[in-house]
Parts: sequence; structure tokens; C-alpha cells
Amino acid sequence: MKEMPYKTYLEESEMPKAWYNVRADMKKKPAPLLNPKTLKPITKEELSSVFCEKLAEQEIDEDNAWFDIPDAVLDFYKMYRPAPLVRARFLEKALGTPAKIFYKFEGNNTSGSHKLNSAIAQLYYAKEQGLKGVTTETGAGQWGTAVSMAGAFFGLDTEVFMVKCSYEQKPFRREVMRTYGAKVTASPSMTTEIGRNINEKYPGTSGSLGCAISEAVEAAASKEGYRYVLGSVLNQVLLHQSIIGLETQSALKKLGVKADVIIGCAGGGSNLGGLISPFMGEKLRGEADYRFIAVEPASCPSLTRGTYAYDFCDTGCICPLQKMYTLGSSFIPSASHSGGLRYHGMSSILSELYDQKLMEAVSVTQTEVFEAATLFARTEGTLPAPESSHAIRIAIKEALRCKEQNSPETIVFGLTGTGYFDMYAYQAFHDGRMQDYIPTDEELAEPIKRLPVING
Amino acid sequence: MKEMPYKTYLEESEMPKAWYNVRADMKKKPAPLLNPKTLKPITKEELSSVFCEKLAEQEIDEDNAWFDIPDAVLDFYKMYRPAPLVRARFLEKALGTPAKIFYKFEGNNTSGSHKLNSAIAQLYYAKEQGLKGVTTETGAGQWGTAVSMAGAFFGLDTEVFMVKCSYEQKPFRREVMRTYGAKVTASPSMTTEIGRNINEKYPGTSGSLGCAISEAVEAAASKEGYRYVLGSVLNQVLLHQSIIGLETQSALKKLGVKADVIIGCAGGGSNLGGLISPFMGEKLRGEADYRFIAVEPASCPSLTRGTYAYDFCDTGCICPLQKMYTLGSSFIPSASHSGGLRYHGMSSILSELYDQKLMEAVSVTQTEVFEAATLFARTEGTLPAPESSHAIRIAIKEALRCKEQNSPETIVFGLTGTGYFDMYAYQAFHDGRMQDYIPTDEELAEPIKRLPVING
Repeated sequence: MKEMPYKTYLEESEMPKAWYNVRADMKKKPAPLLNPKTLKPITKEELSSVFCEKLAEQEIDEDNAWFDIPDAVLDFYKMYRPAPLVRARFLEKALGTPAKIFYKFEGNNTSGSHKLNSAIAQLYYAKEQGLKGVTTETGAGQWGTAVSMAGAFFGLDTEVFMVKCSYEQKPFRREVMRTYGAKVTASPSMTTEIGRNINEKYPGTSGSLGCAISEAVEAAASKEGYRYVLGSVLNQVLLHQSIIGLETQSALKKLGVKADVIIGCAGGGSNLGGLISPFMGEKLRGEADYRFIAVEPASCPSLTRGTYAYDFCDTGCICPLQKMYTLGSSFIPSASHSGGLRYHGMSSILSELYDQKLMEAVSVTQTEVFEAATLFARTEGTLPAPESSHAIRIAIKEALRCKEQNSPETIVFGLTGTGYFDMYAYQAFHDGRMQDYIPTDEELAEPIKRLPVING
Repeated sequence: MKEMPYKTYLEESEMPKAWYNVRADMKKKPAPLLNPKTLKPITKEELSSVFCEKLAEQEIDEDNAWFDIPDAVLDFYKMYRPAPLVRARFLEKALGTPAKIFYKFEGNNTSGSHKLNSAIAQLYYAKEQGLKGVTTETGAGQWGTAVSMAGAFFGLDTEVFMVKCSYEQKPFRREVMRTYGAKVTASPSMTTEIGRNINEKYPGTSGSLGCAISEAVEAAASKEGYRYVLGSVLNQVLLHQSIIGLETQSALKKLGVKADVIIGCAGGGSNLGGLISPFMGEKLRGEADYRFIAVEPASCPSLTRGTYAYDFCDTGCICPLQKMYTLGSSFIPSASHSGGLRYHGMSSILSELYDQKLMEAVSVTQTEVFEAATLFARTEGTLPAPESSHAIRIAIKEALRCKEQNSPETIVFGLTGTGYFDMYAYQAFHDGRMQDYIPTDEELAEPIKRLPVING
């Protein structure tokens, strides 16, 4: 019998040619986006003032299951994809588990994560529409880097609002973006009205994704020929990221292996949604069954402790409203929380799937996360991103459950990226300075009180 | 006709099972290492007080062409190899060249470079010999990271002396090594006699590889059950790194492409030697012809401006002597020089091949290097290591020559790694603060006067 390889790469010719839209297979669809002014479902035309037209179309379309990947995007994908599906043999051995553990590794590109999959798509459509440039926000920095790379490739201006705590902890991320020609500003900044307001209201704030989004949207609206791009939460992003799941599906098929549990970290949902979409499609169509587990930080627990309601996608309340599991758009996670996964809400697709009990969710503290990251690095070689390490933690937990139950299940998780720009956080962990922060019920109650009242 | 893929991956089953020793095919062999005390050719037994026995054997063997790769090393290789051979289509397009440009990319692992190929081999033999741990030096940090990763994998202690300027510019590299459990010390340190002497003689020195080597050798010798490991220069290292060239050779064969020019950056010679060895073998056996180009920094030009003579491998003069192109073991490159390639000498194998005019050499300034790095990042996506970018600069130059001559040649270069921990240098380049340093003839003359007198 042929031994199973460590890494399964598809051939370039086997790469998916179309993205998969899981909404097409959902009987109960996610609630529509609402126009923040009228509180009515937003139209494609209204959405096109913020996003490129093609992307507005993808955002709203809940019927078409497949969208062709443009050739130029496919060409760019081939510079760093297909991404390998890796058998974590050495981690299995260290745990002594009968489970097979696989991870889909998306970190082999300079953005350091899966974010490039959607950045290149979004900037392609911006280029096609004849725009001059785009604005965006970035938390941990991967998305900003991805947009900068795509901008350099297509010759588009890019302006990145980087969450202040990350800007300060990761000066080198900024230099990577500058290498690709991007302009990088710490958020909240004094260059936008919303930034100035937030700085005044919360002096010394370390920023949040929701706030950086508001600034980027304002900056795009204030310039001719610019649009805003966003790296997570949106339906269009989950669509582009479905390439992760589609490749994983093909690779497992090639190996003749059926997954039992599929695990991903969840901030806004871009990776998790992309990874699970095609498998969720099988489940929705009754073709196969899987357990899906979303792993979020205990410091920003939107699925496990949030409310399923309409909320603003941004702190400045200028973006469309979305029905989602949310901590409230005024929630700002503790500065002691490292890395990404700082978003107050969750993709509306994932929120709806979770609400329908098609997916589980769990939260973990950051010291648990860095313990798992260290074990992974020492056994499997790759130093993982803190975000990805949330998934590692739960993959390990599931593998140990399999050991206890003597159950040879197959666990697949998304290793979204590498931690090379997160050594500030690793250092805090090594030095024993890392703190876990779990918000109290009282702290969580406050922003929820400020949720907008819809149809009320 | 089937289109040529962007990236060619071998199957894991197609990976080389043995390393190739180019010395076996050289008619005139490199001069032997000399014992620093007796100035006589060093024996395997004498060498075994510094290196593991198996490695001492490999160091001295100039007859056997092939060495089996142990299974445990092969298993580890499979975690991050085979490395892709990438067609640089977008760079070709940007240059408008008729040349085909390929690069062998060795950066897809946490050490960020090819260094892991030899680290895992050296630590395997250390483990086999029942040692407790190893000591080593690191310049840019890739080698130290590689040794730390291999140490974690085999459960061996690792102590890394890191060249001070790099230690200060790259605090995060240190944290990566700590993640794998290594102890990291800035060199010259006050923990060794040699370090104390050098600190006294050159107060405020930013350190050098030669000096860090001395400290690591002293530290290994002072502890029971420890040996020293080195990431470049040595014959054993070129042997392990031949996997780069062997994979490249197989991938080109798969594509039906014959290389015309093969280019690599050269500090101590580990990458260049590994990349070209199997091709040089073909040339030495009269089976094919190639141009080989070594690219070195203008600030540390051992091949292009050095002397071919016996010299110490380290500043402290405690290591064996080696005949090589050298700037003198007391040469310390300017602190304004970024990244690796700071070694005063060159692999004796490469030195001999260069002396026999089987290989060319050229030097480039660091602003030229960062210009090439930026163009590469923006067209090909990956942000390259400064070291690798030396090779990129000359690959671009050769591609432009092909354009001028309308000559559709095939250029292959080694992209040894990524620049994610070199953003300090990129920042200096972005801010216009980067300085080029080319030593004067007078500056180079001084250390040469101090070369040891052999048989004199």
C-alpha cells in the first residue's frame, strides 16, 4: 500500500475554476443587509457606492452556487496556490492519538495568510471598473499586506488604516506594506472625521477593527475613483475564500479520506467560512455529515456570548447593517488581546448556520492558544499565527478526546497563517507576561444595550 | 501543448534519497583542512573533537559521490520539502525579456531559508551520537532558527551566538528561536574568553560571523556532551545542501528545460554550493555545460577581491585552517551592511572551482540589491531575503542582457529565503537611509597582511 504523503498538493490544472456560494444551498438564507439610512434591504446600486459593482453583485447574490474565477485572478493564485493539505504526523505522534490530523496551510505567501485569496479578487474587480485605488483597514496586518500586494500587482493605490495596537506592536508589518507601495495610517487617526471623534471620545484607545473600517469607508467616499475593500465578514469574502475548502475537498478526495470534524478560527469568519463552505454544502444537500467547530478568543466571543441581531458592521455606524452574532459595534476588545480575531461581529452566513445549529462554537483564552502554538511549532516545524493557533488548540483537544474514546476520527483544521510578525506576543508569552482577559457579563451588556432598534 | 506550470513540485516519492558530493568529480580537489596547532592536514579523529563523528567523516571524504540521507532526516525534509521550482513569469513580463527565469524557492519554512536542510542533518547525527546539545553561531538569523527547530525536533539543547548587529536589528528572530527552546546570546559576548578579548580589542564592535564561530566553538568545547555545528562554508554543509540542486535538476528534467545560467548568492557558499553541485558534476564529467555565477556583497567581496590562501575559519583562530578565497579572518564587514553574507571567506570547494575558472563571481551594492528585491516583491509576490536578492539582481541583469541580445536563454537562480525578519533594512531603504559601503584597497590590505604563514 502506498504511504500517505505528508503534504498533498493539487496540480495547478486541478485548481478550482469557480468559487462556491454556500447561500445557494441554504434553505433559510441569511437576513439581508440593511441600508443604514432607510433600514430597508440595501440594493445593489446603493451598495455600489461603497464596493465595486461586481463585488456588490456577489455580496447580494444568494441564488447562484458558482462564480467563475477570472483568468487574471487564477494566474495570480498560481503564484502561491494550490496550498498544501498537510498530515500532522508528528503532532499526532506527540499526542499519541488514534486520530488523523490534517491542516490546510494557507501561510506560504508574503501576506502570511489566506487573506490574499480575497484581496486579489477584490482588487481585480476594482481594476476592471477603472478605479484609481482602494482603502481598507487591517487588524493583525495580514489583510493590509494582502491588499498591498494585490495593489502593487494591478498598479492600484492602496491606503491602509491599521488598528493602532497592532501598528505599534508590529512596525515591520507596516514596512512590508510599504515595500508594496501602500500608505499605512494608525487607526483611530486624525485624518478622518470618525477617527477624530473616536480619539476624542476614547482618549488613548488602542483601536478596533470596527473603528478602522469606518475610517477606511470615509476615506474612500471622500476621494474620486476609490472604493473600500474589506477582508472578512462579507459574503463576497466567504465566496472568494471558498477556494480553501474546495482545494481541501479535492485533496481529501485524492487521499480517499473523509473528514469527521472540521475546525477553524473565527474572527469575522473569512477563513472558517471559506474552509467549511463546500463541506457545509454537502451537509445541506444531505450528501455527507460533518461536525464544524468555530474557535474564537475568550476576549472577543461573538458567537459564544454575543446576541443574534441586526448591528452595524463598523463603530462609526456608516456601513450597512447586518444580522449577525454580535457583541455590539461599540465593543472594543482589551488591548491585552494579541493579534487578529478582534471583530465585534461575525459573518452573517456563519451566524445563520450557527443559529440553525449546523455548526458548533467554542472560545479559548490566549495563554491556551500560545501553549498550543508552541507545541505545534516544536513538532510540526511551522511557527503558527496566533489566530490559527486557536484552531490548533481545539484540534488538539479533539485529538485527545479521540484518544480517550479510542476513536480514529479524521480532524481537519485551517492553519490560516504564520506568526512571523507576531513575535511581540510570543515574547510576552515566553516572558510570562501574557494576560488572559475574559470580559464580564456586565462589560458585555453595555454595548448590547446600544444595539440599533430595527422594526421596533 | 500543455502549458508550463508556475511552480513545479516533485512528488515526495521523487525526492532525492542521497546527497551528492561534488568533490568526487573534481580532478583537482580542494586543499585539505589543516590542524591549527600542527598545520598538518587534519585527521578525522582530530576533527571529531569539534564535530560529530559522522560529520567529520563527511567533511573529509572527497571520494564518495553519494551519501544516503537517513530516514529520520528524510521524514523531516518532507515537512517542508520538496521546495518548488518557480517560473518567474511576471518578472519576465516586467522586464520584457525573451529569457526564461526560474527560481528555486527555499523560503517556505520557519527558518525562512535553505539552512534547515543542513541543520536537521547535523542535529540528527548529534542525536545518533548520544550528545546532549550543540552550540552554533548565526548571522542574519536563519541558521540559528534552523538549528533551534532541529533541536526542538530531536530534543537537543541548542545555544546560539548571534552576531550583535543582527541581534539588535532583529529582536524577533531571537523570539522565534526561543519558541523552539534555544538559548540566544549576542556575540561578541562576555560569556567566553574569545568574546571578552574581542570586546576589549574592538570596543563597541557590531560583531562578525568569524567571531561568533569562535565563541560557539569555545562554548561547545567547555561542556561535556556538546559539539559545534556550522551552517555554511564546510564541505558537509555543501553536501547536505546538494538537495537544492538535485531537486532543481529533477524539476528541470520534468519540464524538459536545460538551464544556461545558474546564479546564487554567496556568503560562505552553502546555498550556491548546494544549488550548483549536481550541475557542476555534469560539467566536470563533460555531460553538459553551464555558466555559474556567484553573487556577493560589495561590502564583503571575498571571491572578487580576496586572496586564495590558507586562513582561519574564525576570528579567534581556534578552528581548522582552510584554503579559500578570503579577506582575512580579522576582516569585519561594515555595520551598515544588512543581513547575512558577512563571512570573511568562502567554501573551499567553491574557492577551488572559482580558481579553476569553472565559476564566475560578481559583487553588488546593497541599494542595487534592495531595488531588485522591491521589483521582485511587486511582480512575483514574495518578499525576498536581502541575501537572496543579490542573486535576483544579477538574474535581472542577465535577463536584460538576453533582451539586448535577443537571446532566449534559461536563467535559474536560488531564492534562498524570505525577508520577513529583515524589515529593519527594508525600512532604511524605504526611508532613503541605506548606505552602500565598498571597502578601499587599503582597508582590505590590512587583514590580508595578518594571514597565517603556511609552509613559509
